Amino acid sequence: MDSYPILDKLNGLQDLRALSDWELERLCFEIRGFLVDHVSRTGGHLASNLGAVELTVALHRVFRSPQDSIVWDVGHQSYTHKILTGRKDAFDTLRQPGGLSGFPKPHESVHDAFVAGHASTSVSAAFGIATANRLSGNDHTAVAVVGDGAFTGGMIYEAINNAGRSNTRLVIVLNHNDMSISKNVGAFARYLSTIRAKPGYLQFKQRVEGFLNRIPLAGPALIRAIRSSKSVLKYILYHNTFFEEMGLYYIGPVDGHNLKELERALIQARELGQPSVVQVETVKGKGYEFAERNPPAYHGVSQFDVCTGAVGESPAPSGPTFSSVFGRALEEWGIKDSRVCAVTAAMKLGTGLEGFSRSCPDRFFDVGIAEEHAVTFSAGLATKGYIPVFAVYSTFLQRSFDQVLHDAALEKTHIVLAVDRAGIVGDDGDTHQGIFDVAMLTCIPGVTIYSPAGFDSLKADLRRALYEEDGVAVVRYPRGGEGAHCPLGPAEDDVWVDGDRRLTAISYGRTAAALWQACQELEAPPEQVYLNKIWPLSDELVRVLARRAHIIIFEESILSGSIAEHLLSALTRAGFSGKYSMVTLPDGFIPQCRVSDALDAFGLSAGAIGGRIQMEMEGKL
Amino acid sequence: MDSYPILDKLNGLQDLRALSDWELERLCFEIRGFLVDHVSRTGGHLASNLGAVELTVALHRVFRSPQDSIVWDVGHQSYTHKILTGRKDAFDTLRQPGGLSGFPKPHESVHDAFVAGHASTSVSAAFGIATANRLSGNDHTAVAVVGDGAFTGGMIYEAINNAGRSNTRLVIVLNHNDMSISKNVGAFARYLSTIRAKPGYLQFKQRVEGFLNRIPLAGPALIRAIRSSKSVLKYILYHNTFFEEMGLYYIGPVDGHNLKELERALIQARELGQPSVVQVETVKGKGYEFAERNPPAYHGVSQFDVCTGAVGESPAPSGPTFSSVFGRALEEWGIKDSRVCAVTAAMKLGTGLEGFSRSCPDRFFDVGIAEEHAVTFSAGLATKGYIPVFAVYSTFLQRSFDQVLHDAALEKTHIVLAVDRAGIVGDDGDTHQGIFDVAMLTCIPGVTIYSPAGFDSLKADLRRALYEEDGVAVVRYPRGGEGAHCPLGPAEDDVWVDGDRRLTAISYGRTAAALWQACQELEAPPEQVYLNKIWPLSDELVRVLARRAHIIIFEESILSGSIAEHLLSALTRAGFSGKYSMVTLPDGFIPQCRVSDALDAFGLSAGAIGGRIQMEMEGKL
Repeated sequence: MDSYPILDKLNGLQDLRALSDWELERLCFEIRGFLVDHVSRTGGHLASNLGAVELTVALHRVFRSPQDSIVWDVGHQSYTHKILTGRKDAFDTLRQPGGLSGFPKPHESVHDAFVAGHASTSVSAAFGIATANRLSGNDHTAVAVVGDGAFTGGMIYEAINNAGRSNTRLVIVLNHNDMSISKNVGAFARYLSTIRAKPGYLQFKQRVEGFLNRIPLAGPALIRAIRSSKSVLKYILYHNTFFEEMGLYYIGPVDGHNLKELERALIQARELGQPSVVQVETVKGKGYEFAERNPPAYHGVSQFDVCTGAVGESPAPSGPTFSSVFGRALEEWGIKDSRVCAVTAAMKLGTGLEGFSRSCPDRFFDVGIAEEHAVTFSAGLATKGYIPVFAVYSTFLQRSFDQVLHDAALEKTHIVLAVDRAGIVGDDGDTHQGIFDVAMLTCIPGVTIYSPAGFDSLKADLRRALYEEDGVAVVRYPRGGEGAHCPLGPAEDDVWVDGDRRLTAISYGRTAAALWQACQELEAPPEQVYLNKIWPLSDELVRVLARRAHIIIFEESILSGSIAEHLLSALTRAGFSGKYSMVTLPDGFIPQCRVSDALDAFGLSAGAIGGRIQMEMEGKL
Repeated sequence: MDSYPILDKLNGLQDLRALSDWELERLCFEIRGFLVDHVSRTGGHLASNLGAVELTVALHRVFRSPQDSIVWDVGHQSYTHKILTGRKDAFDTLRQPGGLSGFPKPHESVHDAFVAGHASTSVSAAFGIATANRLSGNDHTAVAVVGDGAFTGGMIYEAINNAGRSNTRLVIVLNHNDMSISKNVGAFARYLSTIRAKPGYLQFKQRVEGFLNRIPLAGPALIRAIRSSKSVLKYILYHNTFFEEMGLYYIGPVDGHNLKELERALIQARELGQPSVVQVETVKGKGYEFAERNPPAYHGVSQFDVCTGAVGESPAPSGPTFSSVFGRALEEWGIKDSRVCAVTAAMKLGTGLEGFSRSCPDRFFDVGIAEEHAVTFSAGLATKGYIPVFAVYSTFLQRSFDQVLHDAALEKTHIVLAVDRAGIVGDDGDTHQGIFDVAMLTCIPGVTIYSPAGFDSLKADLRRALYEEDGVAVVRYPRGGEGAHCPLGPAEDDVWVDGDRRLTAISYGRTAAALWQACQELEAPPEQVYLNKIWPLSDELVRVLARRAHIIIFEESILSGSIAEHLLSALTRAGFSGKYSMVTLPDGFIPQCRVSDALDAFGLSAGAIGGRIQMEMEGKL
């Protein structure tokens, strides 16, 4: 499909509002075609965007962006929004270096009201915006669009608790498709489904109010009287849902693929002038059969064949990855040792835990998008002798800083953190780079960190984290599996490789594999130290290194709080007086990129490392 | 009151279970006397403990600790629990160095099932314990005791979402007194009060079930049938409260000062064998008139006169504190500039915002114990041109690491963080020390940090944070106000004091005041640099310092991630080849202590600094 007659003639949001019913239906069809066509070539999030086409069109017809603010939670359902707000022609650059972000970015467009990438933030941000609008005395509305998955995150409740009954123009659109990345878990997801199943109850309620409203003069007064009374009628009318108990006006559930119904509900919410929630029922993957049948496969997808649905030529490695190797190793431990538990925050597939969940279903826990709870829950398990392993992406572990510190490290409670996607992750960009975990974790007392260079070390490190450490033990590893077969492992301890002692080169993790490769190609390689347990630094390591003349460390982590800085600090205290060079990521956010390009650019690829070593040895730096 | 006949004869929890009704009543009376008597001498948390006397007695009569686990949220209501579990005679050491902690500590007693100090963690921990019990096949119960204040924190919902309908012996005791430290805010607090006011509805429900249960044979089957049906009867019986919607069995509200009623409810919860919530209505300060009348004044209290209620000889400074100076300065800005907003997470008094809340009520926001939401809400306000200042204790800001990074710093959204209680705080101990914020914040790109040495600098720094910075601007300052009048300010920029250039001594914050004082007493003081804006390090500072021969830095922050480490790193990159000494806090948790003793012990008092400088200058180190 490469002709989009309606979509192509749209020139701004005002045109959208002028379309006829027939044109709108056709537009949604065209947008779906556009999405499937483009994402099949660039890769990206497909299923969630297909589900939100009508919803997005309705939002932009009812609300006037940017005066009205639309805040997307997580943000991977914002593609239609991007298409409709002037970014259609840039869509081929989606998630490409320098191209469109896969997430809302205020720096990209004035229509992206707030940044998104991590879950459950939208209501807080939108309530802040709505409060600002109230203070400014305008009548603009702030809309938060949240999937039901994000409703398992505690921030949403903190925001609703704060926003309920406030005098603000806040609309929370709850996009209910029962899936975040995989099937949603927990009491709230079940609750939303019971709302959907309620026999006409909510419709009845709205009909009563509609009826009262149509009574001339007396009607509105009657409604006000009922609202302020303590009657049973009020209870039936206004206290049916959790949302109403929390002081939000509830509208729904609404068919999320019926434009008329959607617009009616959104207009009602807009006109209320008080916080409301609109529950919208959508089908993830809607309109593309392959995605409808298997939404998780088309959540974040690489290139695929539009006609057959076959996901092909994946940029992701087809062989084993650190995630899959970790998952298999943990599964084996789980089978052998009934104390081993696995915990995930709605990331079973991504973190490689599917095998474990099948082999040890009793000890597998998907706690929802709830990283804070995941850590403290794990600590609770640990106090009773279990060995919980919380597998989590580096970027999402940021949510749990205080829980790791206060609920686990403080009493030296033994939990294992399997930190996946550590380092640069690529296409997802600055909201998802795993470049802060080393700095974040090394400032928590008593934490142990392993950062294996390859699969064999990963397995050995997992064993040590499970059985030889106390307190918080971390094993961190990158996305994918490139370079993971370098013959550095199975290194349980640091590996020293002798070489020209005028320079000592140090690294860890996948950068260690790059250093190793670089040194294979050097005629006179320097002495090399491949760290495996990167924190705390061993006294022996510091003692030996303190006598070296010239040290260089290569590290895929931001500079401030890096191992490079901590090692320099330890060496200085040990009397080191040599030369010390640090090649790390800069103190900054790293935009979407190809991983290999970024490593090159920051001097952390094998090629860049080799060049740098040569210059250091020749005294040119 | 210094005789406690019943309390004194108790010798373990089994004795508690053998007491008669009369003795129990007398026991509660004695415990209140004991609490008032001891806290009047040692200081501590009084009002919340007075409110929880009967509840604690009932818990220990119904549950068998430590097989059953009692997890206290926040933990400052655990004094009666400590008294009953063998720590009565140590009570004079409460919150003293080396003495009893004011919070539950598993290392202190096997009856303290989990650490507490930060809010909203108990249900996660208790659910972890309950899950472990299920896996182990025992029938022990895990009990979380949570105040309604902690119910504004999102972790509670993450935990309930996960625990609802699980097959675990989890009891959540919701201690409802409508106060955390001050009056609770938000929709949930209002909701709990409506539950309390519901006209016999819940009692009716329990009576119906009680009636059915008494029908021989058929009764229980009937209940099971109703529970699994989709009838209206089920809806009325089981879907009345938020808790039931979330899959928790609801019991209550119960009079929290009626032992019999409490025990009946707790036994019912214990026997259920499924997750439940017991709502208990208590009066904060119960039984001590002065505290009942003014609970906030007796929340965390210093020494006071038992007979008059007069809080006297306060160890807290009676003059201005950093908090009060900040509060007044912000109030002035708020009056002058209608863009300035103040945000607090249930800490209006502690952070000095009372004046602002009176002068600018529209722009004052108490969001509940919800530090994550507070940051993202602030960022939302900022996107619309407001200048929000989130005033928060250093230790609680740890909750917001990801929100500061992802929701504010990433798009350089301008918010101000006023970080109170930065540095060692003393009596509250390891759960509350403000020693991690520098490490945590310096690894977030683009954050600016001011750390004033005195009141005048604080005021100047606040102005610069409000008006001269973009992105996340931090002003951090310690508890109290000692040393804040040292004549270093009003220092907007770093202050250089010339001296013996063989040594350059650097510091910031209250340690700068100590360094200044130390140098007044030295015959030949070293060159001194008093940093005010501590992050990012200025190029000029690094350029000049890089030429110095011998640098020493004094810093009240943990070593890993300290300014000391970052400066060393910057100097090394700038070619520094001199000697570099760091005096910081060690990488570890710091127990309860007198602030001055701790600063002495870690070499950060004026005396210790003077001695160290002399030794460094004499080349003895």
